[in-house]
Amino acid sequence: MGQEVEITSAGGQVWRGTLVPSHEMSGERIVQLKLASGYNVGIRVDVADRVVVVTPSEAPDGLAAAEAVVPRTQPRETPTDGVPWIALLTTGGTIASRIDYRTGGVRPVRQESELLAFYPGLEREGPVRIRSVFDRLSEEIGPADWVVLAEDVGRAFEDGARGVVISHGTDTLAHTAAALSFAVENPPGPVVLVGAQRSPDRPSSDGASNLAAATRLARDPRLGEVVVVMHAGLDDTSFAIHRGSRVRKMHASRRDAFESRNAPPVGHIDESGVHLTAEARAPTGEELRIDTRIVEDAPLLWFYPGLTPERAEVFVGNARGVILAGTGLGHVSSHHLSWIRRAVDRGVFVGMTSQCLEGSADPYVYATGRELRRAGVVYLGDLLPETAHAKMLFGLGRTNSSAELAGFLLEDRAGEFVPRHFPERAR
Amino acid sequence: MGQEVEITSAGGQVWRGTLVPSHEMSGERIVQLKLASGYNVGIRVDVADRVVVVTPSEAPDGLAAAEAVVPRTQPRETPTDGVPWIALLTTGGTIASRIDYRTGGVRPVRQESELLAFYPGLEREGPVRIRSVFDRLSEEIGPADWVVLAEDVGRAFEDGARGVVISHGTDTLAHTAAALSFAVENPPGPVVLVGAQRSPDRPSSDGASNLAAATRLARDPRLGEVVVVMHAGLDDTSFAIHRGSRVRKMHASRRDAFESRNAPPVGHIDESGVHLTAEARAPTGEELRIDTRIVEDAPLLWFYPGLTPERAEVFVGNARGVILAGTGLGHVSSHHLSWIRRAVDRGVFVGMTSQCLEGSADPYVYATGRELRRAGVVYLGDLLPETAHAKMLFGLGRTNSSAELAGFLLEDRAGEFVPRHFPERAR
Repeated sequence: MGQEVEITSAGGQVWRGTLVPSHEMSGERIVQLKLASGYNVGIRVDVADRVVVVTPSEAPDGLAAAEAVVPRTQPRETPTDGVPWIALLTTGGTIASRIDYRTGGVRPVRQESELLAFYPGLEREGPVRIRSVFDRLSEEIGPADWVVLAEDVGRAFEDGARGVVISHGTDTLAHTAAALSFAVENPPGPVVLVGAQRSPDRPSSDGASNLAAATRLARDPRLGEVVVVMHAGLDDTSFAIHRGSRVRKMHASRRDAFESRNAPPVGHIDESGVHLTAEARAPTGEELRIDTRIVEDAPLLWFYPGLTPERAEVFVGNARGVILAGTGLGHVSSHHLSWIRRAVDRGVFVGMTSQCLEGSADPYVYATGRELRRAGVVYLGDLLPETAHAKMLFGLGRTNSSAELAGFLLEDRAGEFVPRHFPERAR
Repeated sequence: MGQEVEITSAGGQVWRGTLVPSHEMSGERIVQLKLASGYNVGIRVDVADRVVVVTPSEAPDGLAAAEAVVPRTQPRETPTDGVPWIALLTTGGTIASRIDYRTGGVRPVRQESELLAFYPGLEREGPVRIRSVFDRLSEEIGPADWVVLAEDVGRAFEDGARGVVISHGTDTLAHTAAALSFAVENPPGPVVLVGAQRSPDRPSSDGASNLAAATRLARDPRLGEVVVVMHAGLDDTSFAIHRGSRVRKMHASRRDAFESRNAPPVGHIDESGVHLTAEARAPTGEELRIDTRIVEDAPLLWFYPGLTPERAEVFVGNARGVILAGTGLGHVSSHHLSWIRRAVDRGVFVGMTSQCLEGSADPYVYATGRELRRAGVVYLGDLLPETAHAKMLFGLGRTNSSAELAGFLLEDRAGEFVPRHFPERAR
């Protein structure tokens, strides 16, 4: 595994690439090569074929020969002191998964060695310290895990990392990015979440190119915020840099599924380098602070026609706060006013966002909004429902006061509000 | 009201347009004119200004002089037999609202006369029978109202309407459109839902142009399905025709907030006419059927990180079905498997959609999906969560069998599945 080989078939066709772990198909000799293009190809090897190991004579794309000889099955040494390094925190997900041909599904890659075999160019631009934090599909990652991740991000920076990459399943990648935006204050470098929509052993995998873009960005000293890096389009040459608190997965399967909502991405990465907009946040120079105080369980409730007040009230239960994803500018049927008033009266925070996922919740346009506001609902401007929810959980961990919680939620903490939508809330 | 006037200010500036009801600002003489461009202008009238009533000498844009003399305060006569007419069912919402300057908010227009005053060109292309069905902001419109509306659509066609326009608040316009797609089978003409993002007394109102496009489309004999017509962009010249079962409001306030998801619009309307794609559904020629059997209360639950199984289970309660909006390809945390299994065991239908709102729910890619499917969750392909929910409510009204309900939901009934995503389900 990890060796550079050249395979010449009996028919004269030539493939050259890095050996990566092949599928578990029994009874066949399949060799899986990662080509210089980044694509994988599975080749059925015949006795008549010629296989030449070309490592360590030369490696493509300036990859140092020694680096091509992955995997390393033992935990690797700490990079030399003084050499700039970045941290890669792995959490599982498709970016670190492979197809299991017995079941037809995807299973996680459990070992660093296997990950390095899939991503032989990982350390092309410098050392990467890999730490496996979890090994989970991202629908299994929740608020308690955000705390662990935030602490690991803090530890990486304290240990001297220039930046942190977090590989993560895409399902809840944006939720985790939003959460880390609030738990990691004043990051001294980039915190880059990255995923893949196709597992790395598939020819169409976007994992390698996303990860290469993410590690490149993580070394950029101009950025000091939590972002998501994923394909900007369907080719492998352009990657969007989304602010962690404004990004959402907007397609179940496309490689460019992630979108910045309400504002353009804060930058992009292409073959010519990293391009940041004026919106991108530089390191503040203030002290890094990891604040993981959180209440893990408080609901996010999406309104729909026919939702009964009884069902809504029982869903909220004894929670200390709830984020509503209302229709349009932030509305729910007036039948819900009574339970909302009861909740507010007993100190429950009720925050309003828009399920349109773009534009701003606004209580001043319609009678419904005014009534809800009078009932004590706090309108959260252009926060995405998911972002508002993550922010509320951290806010609940910081205060028992509903008024203080409203202040926390309405204060711009990570560039989550777009000034154009919500001028009085932006810094 | 409704008269064509020309106002010349003391300074020599000239405005010409149709008198529409003016704002309720006390102490000032404000005249509100609808200009030929469709925009409204409010003019502070001075004693020195000259106001000339030009009706009925000539009217702009080929509008018959008699038609400009609106409003008619009495219920209007049935149009002459034999003249093609369309029905306009009004339900309230911004399209039939105006700013109340005392409160700063928007209030509904309650009278047909006021509506006609706002939309003087309504009958430009032929007679329109107006019926006020409700007078509500759309967040107040739910499943019981879908039934009333479906019956009114049926009645209009039975009475001989060529097509039906439904003016509706935009908040839940798409939900109602999806519902009518399933309740109104084999419509002999277009059923066109239309709304406005700005009330008709505001200069930037999109109501007049949306309504003009909708009434134009409603006369088109080539279309026999439920659609939504709204601005395709920010100007007033192009309107998208969205299939009712695939449309969603994707911005809280923009005029082009509505988007067809998963597939392009089925047509558009511009100055040159109505343009339908090959996807647009023609009248089938089969008998119109209004099937309003429904169960009004069954939940739609959006998953989020940290949602506890207990909260999900209590939300579902005793409902006979639930639509889940899962992450990515249709996932929820495996902690939810136990309550889902219990629900399925007692005959509850559990359907899965994707909260990405584009792409298709698919249980075959990840272990999570396979587990959920084994637990009895029915994957609903590329149905929007809201569409799946409306369809489920009608399905619950038709059968007590969970298996039959799955069959109903997976059968393409109104072009709601995009064949490319879900080939085995399309007609």
